[in-house]
Amino acid sequence: MSSVYGTAFRVSTFGESHGGALGVVIDGCPPGIALDFDRVQAELDRRRPGQSTLSTPRREGDRLEVVSGVLDGKTLGSPMAILFRNQDADATAYKATKDVYRPSHADFTTDAKYGIRAWAGGGRASARETVARVAAGAVARQVLETLGSVEIVAWVDRLQELQATVDSGAVVAVDVDKNDVRCPDAAVAAQMEERIREVRSRGDTVGGVVRCVARGVPAGLGEPVFDKLEADLAKAMLSLPAARGFEVGSGYSGTLLTGTQHNDPFVPDGSGGIVTSTNRSGGIQGGISNGMPIEISVAFKPVATVFVDQNTVNSAGEVAMLKAKGRHDPCVLPRAVPMVEAMVALVLLDHWLRWRGQVGAPPPIPLRSVD
Amino acid sequence: MSSVYGTAFRVSTFGESHGGALGVVIDGCPPGIALDFDRVQAELDRRRPGQSTLSTPRREGDRLEVVSGVLDGKTLGSPMAILFRNQDADATAYKATKDVYRPSHADFTTDAKYGIRAWAGGGRASARETVARVAAGAVARQVLETLGSVEIVAWVDRLQELQATVDSGAVVAVDVDKNDVRCPDAAVAAQMEERIREVRSRGDTVGGVVRCVARGVPAGLGEPVFDKLEADLAKAMLSLPAARGFEVGSGYSGTLLTGTQHNDPFVPDGSGGIVTSTNRSGGIQGGISNGMPIEISVAFKPVATVFVDQNTVNSAGEVAMLKAKGRHDPCVLPRAVPMVEAMVALVLLDHWLRWRGQVGAPPPIPLRSVD
Amino acid sequence: MSSVYGTAFRVSTFGESHGGALGVVIDGCPPGIALDFDRVQAELDRRRPGQSTLSTPRREGDRLEVVSGVLDGKTLGSPMAILFRNQDADATAYKATKDVYRPSHADFTTDAKYGIRAWAGGGRASARETVARVAAGAVARQVLETLGSVEIVAWVDRLQELQATVDSGAVVAVDVDKNDVRCPDAAVAAQMEERIREVRSRGDTVGGVVRCVARGVPAGLGEPVFDKLEADLAKAMLSLPAARGFEVGSGYSGTLLTGTQHNDPFVPDGSGGIVTSTNRSGGIQGGISNGMPIEISVAFKPVATVFVDQNTVNSAGEVAMLKAKGRHDPCVLPRAVPMVEAMVALVLLDHWLRWRGQVGAPPPIPLRSVD
Amino acid sequence: MSSVYGTAFRVSTFGESHGGALGVVIDGCPPGIALDFDRVQAELDRRRPGQSTLSTPRREGDRLEVVSGVLDGKTLGSPMAILFRNQDADATAYKATKDVYRPSHADFTTDAKYGIRAWAGGGRASARETVARVAAGAVARQVLETLGSVEIVAWVDRLQELQATVDSGAVVAVDVDKNDVRCPDAAVAAQMEERIREVRSRGDTVGGVVRCVARGVPAGLGEPVFDKLEADLAKAMLSLPAARGFEVGSGYSGTLLTGTQHNDPFVPDGSGGIVTSTNRSGGIQGGISNGMPIEISVAFKPVATVFVDQNTVNSAGEVAMLKAKGRHDPCVLPRAVPMVEAMVALVLLDHWLRWRGQVGAPPPIPLRSVD
Repeated sequence: MSSVYGTAFRVSTFGESHGGALGVVIDGCPPGIALDFDRVQAELDRRRPGQSTLSTPRREGDRLEVVSGVLDGKTLGSPMAILFRNQDADATAYKATKDVYRPSHADFTTDAKYGIRAWAGGGRASARETVARVAAGAVARQVLETLGSVEIVAWVDRLQELQATVDSGAVVAVDVDKNDVRCPDAAVAAQMEERIREVRSRGDTVGGVVRCVARGVPAGLGEPVFDKLEADLAKAMLSLPAARGFEVGSGYSGTLLTGTQHNDPFVPDGSGGIVTSTNRSGGIQGGISNGMPIEISVAFKPVATVFVDQNTVNSAGEVAMLKAKGRHDPCVLPRAVPMVEAMVALVLLDHWLRWRGQVGAPPPIPLRSVD
Repeated sequence: MSSVYGTAFRVSTFGESHGGALGVVIDGCPPGIALDFDRVQAELDRRRPGQSTLSTPRREGDRLEVVSGVLDGKTLGSPMAILFRNQDADATAYKATKDVYRPSHADFTTDAKYGIRAWAGGGRASARETVARVAAGAVARQVLETLGSVEIVAWVDRLQELQATVDSGAVVAVDVDKNDVRCPDAAVAAQMEERIREVRSRGDTVGGVVRCVARGVPAGLGEPVFDKLEADLAKAMLSLPAARGFEVGSGYSGTLLTGTQHNDPFVPDGSGGIVTSTNRSGGIQGGISNGMPIEISVAFKPVATVFVDQNTVNSAGEVAMLKAKGRHDPCVLPRAVPMVEAMVALVLLDHWLRWRGQVGAPPPIPLRSVD
Repeated sequence: MSSVYGTAFRVSTFGESHGGALGVVIDGCPPGIALDFDRVQAELDRRRPGQSTLSTPRREGDRLEVVSGVLDGKTLGSPMAILFRNQDADATAYKATKDVYRPSHADFTTDAKYGIRAWAGGGRASARETVARVAAGAVARQVLETLGSVEIVAWVDRLQELQATVDSGAVVAVDVDKNDVRCPDAAVAAQMEERIREVRSRGDTVGGVVRCVARGVPAGLGEPVFDKLEADLAKAMLSLPAARGFEVGSGYSGTLLTGTQHNDPFVPDGSGGIVTSTNRSGGIQGGISNGMPIEISVAFKPVATVFVDQNTVNSAGEVAMLKAKGRHDPCVLPRAVPMVEAMVALVLLDHWLRWRGQVGAPPPIPLRSVD
Repeated sequence: MSSVYGTAFRVSTFGESHGGALGVVIDGCPPGIALDFDRVQAELDRRRPGQSTLSTPRREGDRLEVVSGVLDGKTLGSPMAILFRNQDADATAYKATKDVYRPSHADFTTDAKYGIRAWAGGGRASARETVARVAAGAVARQVLETLGSVEIVAWVDRLQELQATVDSGAVVAVDVDKNDVRCPDAAVAAQMEERIREVRSRGDTVGGVVRCVARGVPAGLGEPVFDKLEADLAKAMLSLPAARGFEVGSGYSGTLLTGTQHNDPFVPDGSGGIVTSTNRSGGIQGGISNGMPIEISVAFKPVATVFVDQNTVNSAGEVAMLKAKGRHDPCVLPRAVPMVEAMVALVLLDHWLRWRGQVGAPPPIPLRSVD
């Protein structure tokens, strides 16, 4: 389904970039869980446009309104609907060029598929759609915390060729948010920020890689065949706007090694559990989490909206010239960080609820004792 | 669901590596389509173990038996069940070490999740499971051919650092199958073959990258939000055994470019349609196919079963030494080629049927005329 | 899923009786369809409380607000969210007795399942939830009209033992709405109305049977095994509040006949098509529509909220006395008529879209020509 | 989906009446459960044709073959595939009349939908398909027994107007199987048997009502809106061949009462739990089980295959005369008893697994203690 994600914890999102409202309905949430909506709002603020000089100047408060599914701050187990009213929608910048297909945008493909298109701001294809995901993900994260001690941290790991050095075993959210780029390597972060400003000054845009770790995930999440945990993570990541690549664990670089170099030896953890001494598997083996930190990376292409003249065609198939207007980010990466975290939370919680549905007991502790 | 793939064209697979049989049930197949099961068998033979000296010596005929859903060679629209009897199952090689967790295999995680495990040959986690996918994919491919002129070609693009040079616009299946490695660059293929033999002689294994192109896919397949075409492709690919990474179009290398460098300009195709003059988008924009060739890559890690001593632990949490027995490939790549093609076919057909369910008309021609 | 209905045309509802808002998200709607929202509102007005002296005095305008999925009155193919703000929510009547389990209500079972409950007005279990279904059904009905010439008419067929005489082949909506009871047999309708007033005067309630016909449904809708058309209709009907029974065609009375008496002979329709000379099958054979009118009935029990003292227990398991307050209908039947029609529309459209997804062509005309 | 049932415990069936084999794949079964396949076979034998002089003389051993998902008699949690080879398939009786539409069968509608049809024995539309359901249901029943103490008993309650008197609170399986009719009221059973023989001697057939009780179901199964427990039961029952009606609890007769007469008073059970002193709700309130016995009825029409001449049309739309051949039951009711029980088991287990997926703890005891 186009706008439905998940099997057990199921989110259904809606809303066009410049329509009346966006939102999400969460179906299947465990009942009786006290939610801190200030924390949900904080995640939304991390995704919000206009939060720093590195992002689009569009001003949206993105204040959530919870209209169902919660009583006195606790989940009822019934569908939770969360709404976001559009406040700074301004279609005028798009009207003049609404019949001109923006290169590497969804305008042409949307017309090809549906024969109709909400042209203002990209309609449903706008990254504004992710406000609903981040809200749902922030709810999922709090539910996960009631089930275990899962900690999800994403950061900007590379911007073009500018590669940060980050210890995925130790990095925490406060490190990530120390700068506007959301890169915990302060020195490289400064270079990244400079690069973004420089590129933006030319009307151009850049991309890069977000990396994410989930610590404290117990062994046992994921299904062995089609719904492998890394498969569902890959789908979740590639469903984000501008995502073009995905890796789990050693990813592409792991293909350079031999099997003896790549395998992760199992060792006793000293307290009755089993761990691996390396983690090239990225915390997932055979599609199922093994209790080690889950590590993934996501490649985001440079933003397609550039403020220089581009050759293209219009909906009549005629050659046209496009000079973008509207308000756009020069780099999606800083705002992609909370999006990646949100989607990881949705995947993990969905699998956790499926796990206890089929197998029944609460999942074991992260480092599983074999007894 | 663990072993169910697809929404409209839905496949449900079953079977353990060393159980009585493996198979697949295909639900939702369009009716009245004449299928050539010799072609299905030919795809199965490409995946089959023991087909060359580069792969496992396990001997399985992998002869398909169609037990339902077909009458006089035509699909009935009812569920099509396809069976494969295990013939060369031999559990003895696994029995002695069944309680020893093989590094980077699914033994430990299966125990952690289910508390029970079919230990012979990896059970459900065995790559043998893909026989069912390849059968379903070969059916899907023929159904796709009745809907349009889709052509799906995968090949081994890189083995460790050995990078082939392949023209994705021109490569055809017969080029791929010219050598046992399934790399259409003959010179590099020879190096790859030598590398595999050399590594195998040391009891070790290697990985690499399979690349795949789907030509003739019309504009309009894919959904705008969670079920983006690249998201479903990513999930399908990461669900394959040993897959660790995925790219669409420019992938990770696209992150090095700026937006002006990366965007694909639209141009008239000279006969009323619209194409792009470059294809860094890999045939997908905004989650929807744009009529250009779809291009993806998949990273496969080196095979985990190595024939050298490895330190590990057993199911009691005690340190143990493992020396692998059984029959295994030194490199999964040649046999992964038909698996990748099969999963691409399943994804494309599922979206095609969803497309015409929602929108109703047959999808337009690949290079879409704008009026 | 608790609050999701449908496979291809999928509706996800939300909202508590006395919460901030109720609503529905429709996913998978065909694009480019011009919708008349005044007609949708008209259906909502038929379901609305306070519309006649026979129904609850709760005053809700039930004005729909469409916040996404529509541009200039046409469907975009993206999720359509429709909202209803609660206006006359008044929890005070429920507060005093919130811990007392109302007999034959969902209070006890909701506590048993979730351990938490929105006690005001029944929360999610309130019939107020059906406002969202009626909106979605009214949209589905208009989509159906663009695909064919389906006409759906329901009416109150029996109230207690008061049985109307209605020609299901000829009855139209305007006949149904001629009186407040929504029974097209004027004489029996008057008796029904009198019965309702009499019973209400004693603080009591009544039930009965709604019957529904769908004319113009083409042959070919429905699936042969689990998703038989009558199976999905049965589920849809039994999901309505207070529904306790379902029949298709001859239903329970058909069990009194023999096969030779019950079978519907096929006959040529005189213009190249095939019809049946009787319709004991109710328009469905082998789970698939046959082109004849689809006929079903639904039994609704008497409303559980009675305004006389009742013995019950409270949430502490202690004996308690309950005297209902709040605002309630003495008979659900008149307002159930648009609910039944809405659910029939959802079932038919979902199967229609699934039909053309799998089989591809538009379904044939209702009276199907055999070549 | 046509041949897939369930959300958490998901069964996918396949096979034509006269094809190579029928079967079922069960996905999502809890792992580690010891199954007694002799008991599964015993249920299959209750459904089997040719078991008494009251049923079709077709001889099928219906011996199950389990090909996956089980190791040493225990479930692995992986898909369990169960096969049934057709042994007594004989298409010759159908060949001569394959183009003549049998009245009230699925021949015409299958052609209308798919344009192709397995004409021998009804193909997929044959009641032979239920062999797969009964196998899956018998597995589900054993899984249910590991979760609680659920007991499911169905019986023939009425044949035409011959109404049995059965105490649903006390009836057990052994009473049901005392006679070939499967009616625990011996006196009425004798009349029913005589009626069946008499009707069959005229080449005619009869129908009636099966009633089913599920005792020991804990409070808490079922979802509040679309997936109400009675809604899923209704769908499951109406998906059975020849089913035409469904009731839960008081059903249609409940519509004759007033609310004060119909409501089930809650009372303490004397040991800290809550029960109702009557059970007109049939064990389900607000879509959720309340711990009281679940009671439903299903109406089955007379079998459509009669052995007298019938007027009909052929696939060319021409008037034709049909005299049935083949082997058929004069009354489906005795064999429907295990089918009804199987579908009830599938519904209850699916909701049980969903319950513990969302809410997490094992469901409470049948008569639920309030603290």
